[in-house]
Amino acid sequence: MPVRPLRATLCLAGSELVRGERRDRNGAWMAARLEAAGARVGAWFVAPDDEPALAETLRAAAGGADLLVVSGGLGPTADDRTREALARATGQALSEHPEAWAQVAAALAARGRPADPAQRRQALLPAGARPLPNPVGVAPGVALAWGATQVFLLPGVPAELEAMFEAEVLAWLRARGGAPPAATASLGLVGLIETEVEAALADLAAREGVSVGYYPHAGEVEVRLRADGAGAAARLARAEAAARAALGAHVYGPPPAGRIEAAVVALLRERGLTVATAESLTAGAVAARIAGVPGASRVLRGGVVAYATALKCDLLGVDPALIARHGVVSEPVARAMAAGVLARTGAGSAVATTGVAGPDPLCEPDRPPVPVGRVCVAAGRAGGAPEARTLTLAGDRAGVRERSVVAALDLLRRVLGAPA
Amino acid sequence: MPVRPLRATLCLAGSELVRGERRDRNGAWMAARLEAAGARVGAWFVAPDDEPALAETLRAAAGGADLLVVSGGLGPTADDRTREALARATGQALSEHPEAWAQVAAALAARGRPADPAQRRQALLPAGARPLPNPVGVAPGVALAWGATQVFLLPGVPAELEAMFEAEVLAWLRARGGAPPAATASLGLVGLIETEVEAALADLAAREGVSVGYYPHAGEVEVRLRADGAGAAARLARAEAAARAALGAHVYGPPPAGRIEAAVVALLRERGLTVATAESLTAGAVAARIAGVPGASRVLRGGVVAYATALKCDLLGVDPALIARHGVVSEPVARAMAAGVLARTGAGSAVATTGVAGPDPLCEPDRPPVPVGRVCVAAGRAGGAPEARTLTLAGDRAGVRERSVVAALDLLRRVLGAPA
Repeated sequence: MPVRPLRATLCLAGSELVRGERRDRNGAWMAARLEAAGARVGAWFVAPDDEPALAETLRAAAGGADLLVVSGGLGPTADDRTREALARATGQALSEHPEAWAQVAAALAARGRPADPAQRRQALLPAGARPLPNPVGVAPGVALAWGATQVFLLPGVPAELEAMFEAEVLAWLRARGGAPPAATASLGLVGLIETEVEAALADLAAREGVSVGYYPHAGEVEVRLRADGAGAAARLARAEAAARAALGAHVYGPPPAGRIEAAVVALLRERGLTVATAESLTAGAVAARIAGVPGASRVLRGGVVAYATALKCDLLGVDPALIARHGVVSEPVARAMAAGVLARTGAGSAVATTGVAGPDPLCEPDRPPVPVGRVCVAAGRAGGAPEARTLTLAGDRAGVRERSVVAALDLLRRVLGAPA
Repeated sequence: MPVRPLRATLCLAGSELVRGERRDRNGAWMAARLEAAGARVGAWFVAPDDEPALAETLRAAAGGADLLVVSGGLGPTADDRTREALARATGQALSEHPEAWAQVAAALAARGRPADPAQRRQALLPAGARPLPNPVGVAPGVALAWGATQVFLLPGVPAELEAMFEAEVLAWLRARGGAPPAATASLGLVGLIETEVEAALADLAAREGVSVGYYPHAGEVEVRLRADGAGAAARLARAEAAARAALGAHVYGPPPAGRIEAAVVALLRERGLTVATAESLTAGAVAARIAGVPGASRVLRGGVVAYATALKCDLLGVDPALIARHGVVSEPVARAMAAGVLARTGAGSAVATTGVAGPDPLCEPDRPPVPVGRVCVAAGRAGGAPEARTLTLAGDRAGVRERSVVAALDLLRRVLGAPA
């Protein structure tokens, strides 16, 4: 007899969320992980910090759920009311928990902060609850069995929530058993738009009995495959192989989309190469994305942010005559920037960007204006001629810059992947 | 007698939202507009496409609300169930509405698409409901008075929803009258933690009759002030002045927190100065944040990403003996990096970062290891000696890097703000 999937509900606590002053950053993350672990998320509730209203929402959210995960409202300030609301909803008294206070005091000591009285609120727990260690921040989480519902309260800061979600919620789910997790896979790709990807994979869902989702990011598309039930793993493996075959060199790998830099760092390490950047409109964002990958220090040398045109000459050795001839947003200038940073840093590979993010077109003397969204990227290896591409990118200033970063990383990936 | 604010509730319909397969793009947008128009958003519900479950959620969401706005599930496909769920929840029969069908047929004709039978579902309305024209897409919206609750169903596609929200929901709100819009203000600050800010503003809420919220970002705190009712603007102005006086130089300005770079760019323009960056662990992220501000090209020259130690010497002219004496993560090295980039770029000011983001401590020959989170930042003007600070930052790799960016921008802000 198949095991009934565990029913999960989320509650996101915070008046700033309810009022639309801040976008939630936790709900989709938690829901996707619960689903991948075999639970079924039935609903979310977004509730204000107001204690009676939050308590009422917790009662509604817990009804019929095996698992209720609540994010936010565990900090030390007066508008952090989630502990109080849970105590009110469950009818349990709130009191200082010695283990929770020890966790708070240790976290404050590690930060060189005094354990002042306001901080003690973070150690208040409903009777019967257990504090959850917070490896990233100060506020402990809370675990409480409430009738048939297991409740977890987690801090709203994403880095804290994510660490505690993995360590506590997913561990609890695994220990409880239940329905087998769905088999899931994710492919990141650059170079096709969503409808092209969908057309390429049109018959996959029916053929292998998997569900296929398409999620555009800035300049990327993520394909998510999911198989449930008997033979899920085998069907998923066949579907993933078929998807990779259909999408070819556009796929950069299994890391989730938005992380093409992880694929680039892996490729650099595999090739034994270092990298340097020469950035104009992206202004350091390509280097910063690479540096965000743990272990990047083994491959990232550094680079030059040549935002002002003069710095392209002064710091990268680009010939002013080349700029005068082709314009600062041109493939020859992008290639010269890459060559310049290769020469100046001794790196084994380089990537360069130059373009117009807006809001205004670029006007150079004696040249037609360069429209917003025109971007040139170049990438190459030491000792070879860099390759360049010209792109026309849509979006506002932030969108053009983000897509430029992705395009530069993708060109570098393709150059590194080609035979030396 | 003050008018009671109108109570609004949102319901976001879609199994892909509940499961975390797609992030909602409408809730925060609608909530912020409702709040700005004087309504109070009490809660949100995120519900699956499942008809009984969605009907149940609609009943819960409408309870006690004057206004219920529902997004999503109005399209022609089988998983669009919001019309059916509203009919079930209200006990009204669903039938084809001639005006709705005329809207659908006209929209399809304008797109050169046949009005095939599947499209007719979009013209089904509960008895007593009114179709809302969709100026952007095909599916009509739905308006229905349900007891004391006014219900609007809107399509989930943001462009369609936004146009119809303005034309229908906000028009209904204005026609109904009600409470005047709230007066709100926001202050960003760096240098105090959340509890210190709260202590400094402890009596403000009671004294001026405003609500005060505290929102930590990486390395920053945002203070939000809100006044409602009679004399709201005057009370808000007094509260904002009092908050600025209490928080002093930690306040960087009115832009929302997370945007300290906008304050830095404004200060640079006011001072007539340019800026350059010399970045190690932040690897270009300081320059990229500055470049994200429209108009940054007038002040940002560029900079050097000196991630590898050798590049600090090769590209910034830092004396290797200085590194050997103090270690690469030290105030003298941070100052030398700032001085080096000032000399090489001709900028009027500079900011520098060096530190350990982790995951591993930094081990240099013949020196004790430098722990994760130890960061030195420096900032200065051309012709002066740069100032430096040493920080101990908590968090994972991404958190340490993000807080380092904020600390560097804040030191630059303080240096620029001081008399030359």
